[in-house]
Amino acid sequence: MIKVGIVGVSGYAGAQLLYLLLQHKGVEVKFIAAHSKAGEEIGDLYGNFVGKFSQNCCTFQEAYEQFDEIDLVFTALPHGKSADAVKLAFDKGIKVIDLGADFRLDDAQEYEKWYKVPFQHEELINESIYALPEINREEIKDKKVIANPGCYATASILGAYPLIKEGLIEENSIIIDAKSGTSGAGRSEKTGNLYCEVNESIKAYSVANHRHTAEIEQELTRVANDKINLLFTPHLVPMNRGILSVIYGKLKTGVTKEDINKAFEKNYKDEYFIRLLKTAPETRWVKGTNFCDIGIEVDKRTGRVIVMSAIDNLMKGASSQAVQNMNLIFGLDEKEGLELLAMFP
Amino acid sequence: MIKVGIVGVSGYAGAQLLYLLLQHKGVEVKFIAAHSKAGEEIGDLYGNFVGKFSQNCCTFQEAYEQFDEIDLVFTALPHGKSADAVKLAFDKGIKVIDLGADFRLDDAQEYEKWYKVPFQHEELINESIYALPEINREEIKDKKVIANPGCYATASILGAYPLIKEGLIEENSIIIDAKSGTSGAGRSEKTGNLYCEVNESIKAYSVANHRHTAEIEQELTRVANDKINLLFTPHLVPMNRGILSVIYGKLKTGVTKEDINKAFEKNYKDEYFIRLLKTAPETRWVKGTNFCDIGIEVDKRTGRVIVMSAIDNLMKGASSQAVQNMNLIFGLDEKEGLELLAMFP
Amino acid sequence: MIKVGIVGVSGYAGAQLLYLLLQHKGVEVKFIAAHSKAGEEIGDLYGNFVGKFSQNCCTFQEAYEQFDEIDLVFTALPHGKSADAVKLAFDKGIKVIDLGADFRLDDAQEYEKWYKVPFQHEELINESIYALPEINREEIKDKKVIANPGCYATASILGAYPLIKEGLIEENSIIIDAKSGTSGAGRSEKTGNLYCEVNESIKAYSVANHRHTAEIEQELTRVANDKINLLFTPHLVPMNRGILSVIYGKLKTGVTKEDINKAFEKNYKDEYFIRLLKTAPETRWVKGTNFCDIGIEVDKRTGRVIVMSAIDNLMKGASSQAVQNMNLIFGLDEKEGLELLAMFP
Amino acid sequence: MIKVGIVGVSGYAGAQLLYLLLQHKGVEVKFIAAHSKAGEEIGDLYGNFVGKFSQNCCTFQEAYEQFDEIDLVFTALPHGKSADAVKLAFDKGIKVIDLGADFRLDDAQEYEKWYKVPFQHEELINESIYALPEINREEIKDKKVIANPGCYATASILGAYPLIKEGLIEENSIIIDAKSGTSGAGRSEKTGNLYCEVNESIKAYSVANHRHTAEIEQELTRVANDKINLLFTPHLVPMNRGILSVIYGKLKTGVTKEDINKAFEKNYKDEYFIRLLKTAPETRWVKGTNFCDIGIEVDKRTGRVIVMSAIDNLMKGASSQAVQNMNLIFGLDEKEGLELLAMFP
Repeated sequence: MIKVGIVGVSGYAGAQLLYLLLQHKGVEVKFIAAHSKAGEEIGDLYGNFVGKFSQNCCTFQEAYEQFDEIDLVFTALPHGKSADAVKLAFDKGIKVIDLGADFRLDDAQEYEKWYKVPFQHEELINESIYALPEINREEIKDKKVIANPGCYATASILGAYPLIKEGLIEENSIIIDAKSGTSGAGRSEKTGNLYCEVNESIKAYSVANHRHTAEIEQELTRVANDKINLLFTPHLVPMNRGILSVIYGKLKTGVTKEDINKAFEKNYKDEYFIRLLKTAPETRWVKGTNFCDIGIEVDKRTGRVIVMSAIDNLMKGASSQAVQNMNLIFGLDEKEGLELLAMFP
Repeated sequence: MIKVGIVGVSGYAGAQLLYLLLQHKGVEVKFIAAHSKAGEEIGDLYGNFVGKFSQNCCTFQEAYEQFDEIDLVFTALPHGKSADAVKLAFDKGIKVIDLGADFRLDDAQEYEKWYKVPFQHEELINESIYALPEINREEIKDKKVIANPGCYATASILGAYPLIKEGLIEENSIIIDAKSGTSGAGRSEKTGNLYCEVNESIKAYSVANHRHTAEIEQELTRVANDKINLLFTPHLVPMNRGILSVIYGKLKTGVTKEDINKAFEKNYKDEYFIRLLKTAPETRWVKGTNFCDIGIEVDKRTGRVIVMSAIDNLMKGASSQAVQNMNLIFGLDEKEGLELLAMFP
Repeated sequence: MIKVGIVGVSGYAGAQLLYLLLQHKGVEVKFIAAHSKAGEEIGDLYGNFVGKFSQNCCTFQEAYEQFDEIDLVFTALPHGKSADAVKLAFDKGIKVIDLGADFRLDDAQEYEKWYKVPFQHEELINESIYALPEINREEIKDKKVIANPGCYATASILGAYPLIKEGLIEENSIIIDAKSGTSGAGRSEKTGNLYCEVNESIKAYSVANHRHTAEIEQELTRVANDKINLLFTPHLVPMNRGILSVIYGKLKTGVTKEDINKAFEKNYKDEYFIRLLKTAPETRWVKGTNFCDIGIEVDKRTGRVIVMSAIDNLMKGASSQAVQNMNLIFGLDEKEGLELLAMFP
Repeated sequence: MIKVGIVGVSGYAGAQLLYLLLQHKGVEVKFIAAHSKAGEEIGDLYGNFVGKFSQNCCTFQEAYEQFDEIDLVFTALPHGKSADAVKLAFDKGIKVIDLGADFRLDDAQEYEKWYKVPFQHEELINESIYALPEINREEIKDKKVIANPGCYATASILGAYPLIKEGLIEENSIIIDAKSGTSGAGRSEKTGNLYCEVNESIKAYSVANHRHTAEIEQELTRVANDKINLLFTPHLVPMNRGILSVIYGKLKTGVTKEDINKAFEKNYKDEYFIRLLKTAPETRWVKGTNFCDIGIEVDKRTGRVIVMSAIDNLMKGASSQAVQNMNLIFGLDEKEGLELLAMFP
């Protein structure tokens, strides 16, 4: 049994993570920590746990004191908040999977440019890895600090990766138009997150400056061996869960639909969690799962490819990908605890 | 392994049932039959199955021909449509769990009064049972024809049962005001089920004549040893899943909140799938589960009890209760394949 | 032109009121006041006003200083907050329409029992009136302090009134099961009001202790000439607007469906804003209007009547009823500015 | 009074048009025609009209027989269905505003390529005009056959027009990613339009082949004096109304944010129905109105402009734009009957 703790259980991603860990055969949850909700029973915060799991949330300090008794800690905190827990875990010699953004970028300056706060613990950059198993599975296995990718970034990188890897599109032609359910905004008490404000409307936000742009560019640049700049636009959609990332790229001369299909087939045919569809993906079919559904079209008239990539933002975009990474670094079957299908409707 | 087939897989309840059976360790699905969708692959009807289960729907006739090879058939069809399959299964000596309404009432005249169609195969009335495990577990075990309760009826009977059983309310004072998500209307192409028609509105329907009234009265009458008449009003709510049944009853003189609590505790304390809450239940916490969450209030001012009972209409109200009944009649752990928690949000 | 001001414009009811007043031919809006949003332009709070009305919100103090220049002030504030403004308006000799609860109950003790705060300015009780035009139009006309009814109360009283007035039901048999859209909870930043918390779920709340019970009982008692106690249960529905109030009553012996229909016809046939339907009302058809749609069923089996009453909680349940009251006390056509139809879908 | 008739009142656009015409001071509605719903009262189809307008739907034939008594006919029919009515109107010498697609393209071959049906009545091409008042107001005034633009096209053309007109972007760099509420799919009884199928999901559809592409290209080509090809991707969003069209273009060298702003200011500063925002537009603020809200960002990193254009698909995208065109061709104030604000929430 892998002994784990969660620091930051009271947000949607943290609670979803707990949900998955409780159903995972190889895991024992030793503690769940929450900042402002410390002392409260998890079932009072999330009624789905009632009768199944009745632990109280502890403070971060209480969590830190139990680091000696666990093999792995998950941190699910806003950016700028997880560095201390990560550092402590590293020093104690236990593994850490950070669902936050603090170790996703391997360039401190870039981090500070996008996040407007100082990068903490730069000494951990070399110990950490941006962990998207379908892209860099092998490199992840030995790392101590696992930076779990952002939700938009997961959908976008998985959708764009074969195009870049196989050199099919003009590298700086990428435009990503992404749409997310409202749980992406977290359980924060802001006017903009209220039911009546989100319902029956759609908007773009953080236009031309959303932070996930940085990690998408970083990872695609790594693949391209060439600096990639791309335009990323997120939207807020009136639904609880789901991200649909639509990626537009200018095809290099002569590239056909068949070339594109082959590239995706080549890179993803053995990936259980990626389903290549013949139709346009819909977020409802990946809801509650670790799947990334991908559909592709080519528009001959304009010489462009359109890749549509759908995930559940709280699952493959956060918690279930964290479990996938846990399985990976502990040598378990990557699918363990993750063979979930979407429940519909 | 229990070998099973589903007749009527293309509706929401049928597809949900398949979902559960595929994840059940003790079951092998031999065929899935659909009427108008025969010949289509299930993944084309429900994209959640893509990559996991790729069987084609067969015709009912093709299903019938395989009855010799299975131990159990599930029928999930509109009322009046399952009698033939049920009769055939009975004659073949295999068990049948009918998610439809055709064998729920044990009085053919009553059936015809509410359903306006003839009762077929009256000879099976004695072989069949209204199967709500928390109420009549022992009687279910030996029966061949299992009439799976209706969704509204499940929530309502479970909410009212301890009140009647322990004689706490005036028997003919019961008013049930129930609210259901839209999946209860099925996957039928009617104007009233369109997104824009249901969204942003609420209405009552089938006021004073909804068919589930008959089965609620039948089962409560059985418990009361006295004919019970009650008023039942269903509502359509703009959400996919969930039923909240609110039951009002006039307390007998001297009955207290404590008496009520004790009655529920006495009858349900060992029932895994019933959670007695100290707060008002919310359908979101039972979504995707076999749980029935119950909350109770007493209004001293008017001498009334208010029982609130929440289920997932497609789960405890249909498919997962069918699996619970299957577990029961095949001697498995009743929880097998059903230890699901609600995924939130 | 009636010169008006709004104290409390930043909530949903206040903003909806401004919307109506801007389109009303006989009204000039002199100021809009908001507490925490003072200094902000209304268009920054509510984007629908952009390009049409660009006034800044003033402080309450700034509003009070302009009471000499207006004929009428609307207060749209949480309970316990409007008494000062109302008192000042009264002392200045201007009329006031209070959308809050502070002058709805004419018994200070009753107010304190339900609201848990002291009744302020009891000396105004005799100057104020609970103003539901369809019930007590004539009494409203001369009053200075107009207590605009609560949303649930409006739907419930209008639905129950003819039953009580004409003596058709047993007076203490009334049970009201009401369902409201989420705007009823206001624009307050609470976890329970977040999109993901409300969406895809339904729950009852304030069971057996919701404050609107008091005003429903008060007004029906006035009609009955006998103390009426009733049970009221509100529910939160995942939609923006709309209240459906379902009223159950035990028919007196011999009362028929025809008697009921006649009673409603008699009392409401000349009421423009009440539509007696032959079908069950749906909130979508009254959304954005001052209509109250009423449908009636009788259940002979249980001897009960079911009255379904649908309004828009922000309109007939708050702002448009306030405008109707304004029209009434200033001698305008009651329909002025209120001949809106629901926009569908 | 302009005497008008509607052919095709039973769809969402037709019903919305009736709604507007009933509130328009200068219009008298002589008949409303519906194909499959002929003989039904409009209030039975759309409950919002109850008590306000109680006409029965007539057949198309009955409508045609009244063409002599009207000044203008609106046709709101699926493509391929309005040509006969349009031709008849033209022959009778009355004006016609077609909300359908049959006269939007002025090239029959292009029409047939996109719509896969023959162009009917090519002789009317010269008599008809693609009527987007903000773009070609003067040309519209004298025309007999008014082709009302498509919903996606309206939002997209208005958003892209100043960029093309002022030569600010590379002409063939345009990518449009648009999102629409579900009413755009009409009131048709298809599985894909059911509540449970649309709710809680997002998808792209008609990728690289949506028919509105043709009209967007046609109108932008006209402005550019150069053939424009662009990529257009529509999405289905779980909400009733609203279109957000996000337009991406590659800036010509040296073009700045200020240049862009000036271009929009120059072209739209006198347009009442276009609101240039400093923020990202949200569909909720234009719901139920004839407004087009536009927001602009420039991404210096990638040298691209992002124009976000929001309309109500049934209003500026269909019915209210039809009324705007009516006002225009009959010499009324263009705003007559259209000074509606969004009702929120």
